[in-house]
This record gives sequence, C-alpha cells and structure tokens, in this order.
Amino acid sequence: MADEAPLPVREIGSFLVGGRAVTLRERPARGLIGDPGQQVNLNGDFALHQMYVQYVTLADPRGRYPILLWHGGSLTGAVYETTPDERPGWQSSLLRRGHSVYVVDAPGHGRASWARYPELEPREPTFRSHEALWTLLRLGPPGSYAADPAGRRPYPGTRFPVAHFDQFAKQTVPRFAVDPVEVQAAYDALIQRVGPCVVLTHSAAGQFGLAAAPRPPGLVRGVISIEPSGGPDPDAVNLASLREIPHLFVWGDFLDRDEQRGVWEPLVRSTARYHAALVASGASSKWIDLPARGIRGNSHLLMADTNANEIATLIDDWMRRNGLIATR
Amino acid sequence: MADEAPLPVREIGSFLVGGRAVTLRERPARGLIGDPGQQVNLNGDFALHQMYVQYVTLADPRGRYPILLWHGGSLTGAVYETTPDERPGWQSSLLRRGHSVYVVDAPGHGRASWARYPELEPREPTFRSHEALWTLLRLGPPGSYAADPAGRRPYPGTRFPVAHFDQFAKQTVPRFAVDPVEVQAAYDALIQRVGPCVVLTHSAAGQFGLAAAPRPPGLVRGVISIEPSGGPDPDAVNLASLREIPHLFVWGDFLDRDEQRGVWEPLVRSTARYHAALVASGASSKWIDLPARGIRGNSHLLMADTNANEIATLIDDWMRRNGLIATR
Repeated sequence: MADEAPLPVREIGSFLVGGRAVTLRERPARGLIGDPGQQVNLNGDFALHQMYVQYVTLADPRGRYPILLWHGGSLTGAVYETTPDERPGWQSSLLRRGHSVYVVDAPGHGRASWARYPELEPREPTFRSHEALWTLLRLGPPGSYAADPAGRRPYPGTRFPVAHFDQFAKQTVPRFAVDPVEVQAAYDALIQRVGPCVVLTHSAAGQFGLAAAPRPPGLVRGVISIEPSGGPDPDAVNLASLREIPHLFVWGDFLDRDEQRGVWEPLVRSTARYHAALVASGASSKWIDLPARGIRGNSHLLMADTNANEIATLIDDWMRRNGLIATR
Repeated sequence: MADEAPLPVREIGSFLVGGRAVTLRERPARGLIGDPGQQVNLNGDFALHQMYVQYVTLADPRGRYPILLWHGGSLTGAVYETTPDERPGWQSSLLRRGHSVYVVDAPGHGRASWARYPELEPREPTFRSHEALWTLLRLGPPGSYAADPAGRRPYPGTRFPVAHFDQFAKQTVPRFAVDPVEVQAAYDALIQRVGPCVVLTHSAAGQFGLAAAPRPPGLVRGVISIEPSGGPDPDAVNLASLREIPHLFVWGDFLDRDEQRGVWEPLVRSTARYHAALVASGASSKWIDLPARGIRGNSHLLMADTNANEIATLIDDWMRRNGLIATR
C-alpha cells in the first residue's frame, strides 16, 4: 500500500441511519447487574437499533455505483478495513480499484451501539468464545482449538492467517438477536439514502442484501454475497424485478467436511436454490465455488484470508463484466 | 467538502491494540439474562479491554506528527467523523489541514467491543438517557430537555446543533467503568506503536492524554485537551520532562452557570492548577477560555458545535506556533 500512488479521496465521514426512539416510563428502579445494592433509574428516552455507516468516497470513481459493505454476525465493519495480519482489507482493495465504499456496523454491533437488557433488548447477547469463533470460521475441526497458539491444529492448507487468530478475536463483538424486520429496515433506509449502489454482504448479512435487491424503487444494482447464511424462498420473490440486477455468490473451502456439513449444507442448498431460480428467470447470477476452481483453503472469513486481494480482483472482474464499472 | 480538491490519502485501515486474554473455566452454566430458562455456557477464552484504532494517513502531511483523537465517555471515535448535522468533523478538518489522524474507540466502547457481565466486566455499564446526555453536554439547564424536540429549551445562543440532538444521541454507547490503569495501558501501547505523535483528547480521555505525555521515552510531542475531566496532581508528575511538550486547554461556555458549576468547577480548577504548574516549570501551556475571547455558546461537545471548524483552526494555529507543523 505505502508504495502506491495517493488515493484521491473526496469525502470521509459517517452517519447513523434507521432505528427508533424508545421511552421507559414509571419503571421502578432495580439493582445494578453485578452490584445489586446500587439502584439504577431505568426511565428516559433511548435510541435503539440504528445502524452506523462510514463512507470513503473517491474524487473520480471508476465504479458506476458505491459499494456497501455489510459484515456478518459478531463482527463490525472493521473486518473490511485491515486483515488480522495487517494487510489492507477489502475497503482499501475496493477503493484502490476505483470504488467508493460505505462500511456499516449493523444494529447492536460496534459503533451502532446497543441498549440495556433485559428492558430494551429482551435478552443478553451471544458472547462467542475464541473456540466458538475458530470452529464457526472453519479454521479447523471441532476440538482443534487450544488456548495456546502452538497447540492449535488448523485444517492443512487453510488460508486464514491463523498465527494472528487472537488478534482477529479482538475485533469480534457480542451478538444481539435483533428482529430481522428491524435490521432490514435499517439496511433499506441506508440504500434509500445512498441511492443506486452495489451491496456486498458476508454471512448473516447475506439475507438482507438478497432481500433488499428486489425492493422498489430498485436502487440495488448488484448483489455480491460472500458465503451468505442461506437464500430467500424464490417463490416469495418477484424475480422479474431482478432481471437487470446481477448476483454473485462466492464460497470457500472445507464446506463438505463431515464435521462441517451439518452447519453449512443447508445454507449452501437454500442459496443454490435461489441462484438457480435467478438463472431460470433470466437474471445474471454467478456461483463461484473457489475449490472447484482449484483455489483451496479459504475459510468462512474470505476477506481476511491470505488470498483476500485476489478474491477482490475476482469480484472486480465480475463487476466489470456485469456493467457495474464505467467504461471510459 | 465536496467542492474541495481531493485529499491525497496514503493509507486507510485499523488495528486493535492493548487488552488481555481472559479464560473462564469450570464455571457452572447460568440462566440467560432475560430468558433464565435458557442455560449459557460461560467458559472459554475471551479478549478484554483492547482498543480499536482507525487511521487515515496522508501521502504528504504538513503536520510533523500524526494526531491521535481520543473521545470522551459514552462516545466513540464517530464523534470526530461528522457532526450530528452532517458537517465534516475534526477528522476531516485536520486531514484537510495536512494532519494524518488516528481515531480510537476506547476499551469497552464501539468497535473496541465489550465483554459479558457480571463475569468479565464486574458491573453493568451506565446507559445515559437522552435527558442525561442533554444536561451533561451543557445544552440547557436541568429540566430543559423534553422528549418532543419542540419542547426543549436550550441555553440561548448555544452553538450545539440542537435540532439534530436525537441524531447525536444515536452515536452514544453504554459506558463501562474500566480500570483506568488498563485504559492508560492501552493508550500507552497505541503511542508506542505509532511513535512520535500529538494527542488530542476530549472530556474523560483528558486524564489519559495528560498522563501519557511525561512517560518515557517521550513520544508525545503535544497535548490538546478539550474540556478535560480534570488535571493530574502536578506534584506527582515529572514536569521537567514536559518542558519541550506544548500543552493546550480549550473550554466552552456555560461553565459558570449556577446549575453547572457543581459539576464543572472542580474539573476546571484541577486542570487550571496543572496548567499553572506547567507554565511555572517553563513548559509551553496555553489556556483558551472561548467565552473570554468573545466566542460564546460552545457546549461540552465542541467538535460538534456550529463553530467546530473555527476551533480546528485555533488548534491548527496553536500547533504551528508550537513547532508541530513542518515549515516547507
């Protein structure tokens, strides 16, 4: 990066979008969790379920539309900024390829903030241990994590920078079970604000990107789903509205291991069904199974893997072939 | 912003620094807060009290050193990005004036993440209601907040964009009482990593900036304290080590109102004592009382006020006069 030409940036900034105001009234005080002798006043007005959005726009973008980067569960937009071993992340990769970017923190995650439980969030969030993260990201089979890095047994050939796993774990956040209808509303509000855009999602954000695309007035001009957590029911979607909206699906390795299949097979299957329906309806939909192309070793966190920049090139090439990059 | 020349950016990225690994072992499962019939396994390895740092470095900075921007309590680095009424924040103001910037989220805030309570954080954090925020920021006297924006009675002449107060409230986060020794260690680790730098703090971060400056090996080259929450005991500081380290203190309006004095007078007094000791020791220390200069109406959140850009100019001028900007 440091040896490259300066990036001509137009604007850097952030905003919060979506969410709602809630008021607690006439609630009796209760004991502080962890120090019940101390009484807390619960009453007042609070903000809930807004989304944080940080943008870096280019003075002269090559991409026709800005790209919105939506992270997966237990993560924040930081996952797109820099890899755990400190290579430039997809935010920089895409900026360098001429795309303005909007990186979000989803409701309840990171700078989007979170609210008191059990009064405003009904339940405590999920706190994933390092072992749970290790397994979920398909870095190794169950039981292959150890507190001591020297004792960890990742999948042979993994492209995740496993020596920096503990550094990665620092960027994970607790995960609230926010009503998906509210989360979708925040994403939709973001799209309304930005205007025509390309949406790039990872994992749990996949459903929101796929659902946003068919919505009037059709501001989503392309959807890139990195290992989405399943696809919508195609029978419930107006597929005709997607005929001009190219879709891309990208999948990593180790999905069909015996110990992984139980988690991933249903997600891949429902996504593949949606992809097939898109193709049948005449839309442009591309399915990239990286191992089938001979690109082995990718984890669930492809944007952190050692070949993340090459995958960004695949994505950029797909955008070019699908009319998402201006011809000069 | 949009009409200005492109900003020549060298690198954009982020990292996490400081904090520690903690392990919970052999803890019995307990009921989920909010759904006690569901049992949660508490055990595993977790990360605690790391700090998130996002950097935007310039290809050809005018400032001799990057500026580290440290936010106050219940806030995140977002407070420096864009004002609640969507003017460019100090991050952009300083970048436009030729300074590379590092914006942090302090331990427990925003993208720095937070951990399960009461097991890893001993106590529930403070959740500030809109009314508590309104009063704390000195937007009006106690009782002047109302849920309905039309019913709010801010101080006449306030420079806070009060019409956008609810938008501001969305960016606030719960506040954990993290051990200040641990927080200081994270800030010190950041300074060690960045190298020679200028530190700009707001409110609760003030104590950490002032304490970082005298530490060997003397990497802090200037300290800008925006309404710090008090100053260190000068008798406990090696003031001789600060002779070449300029200090700046900036204060807004409404501090001496009867209803505000109880909160602010002790903070101003202990800071003034430290400033006086710096001056007496031969250090360069500047005290800017904005109302005394005829600049009235500033709230506690000066970086969000309508004259935020003018205050950035004051800061930049002070840096120039104190040798913190390269002469070409």
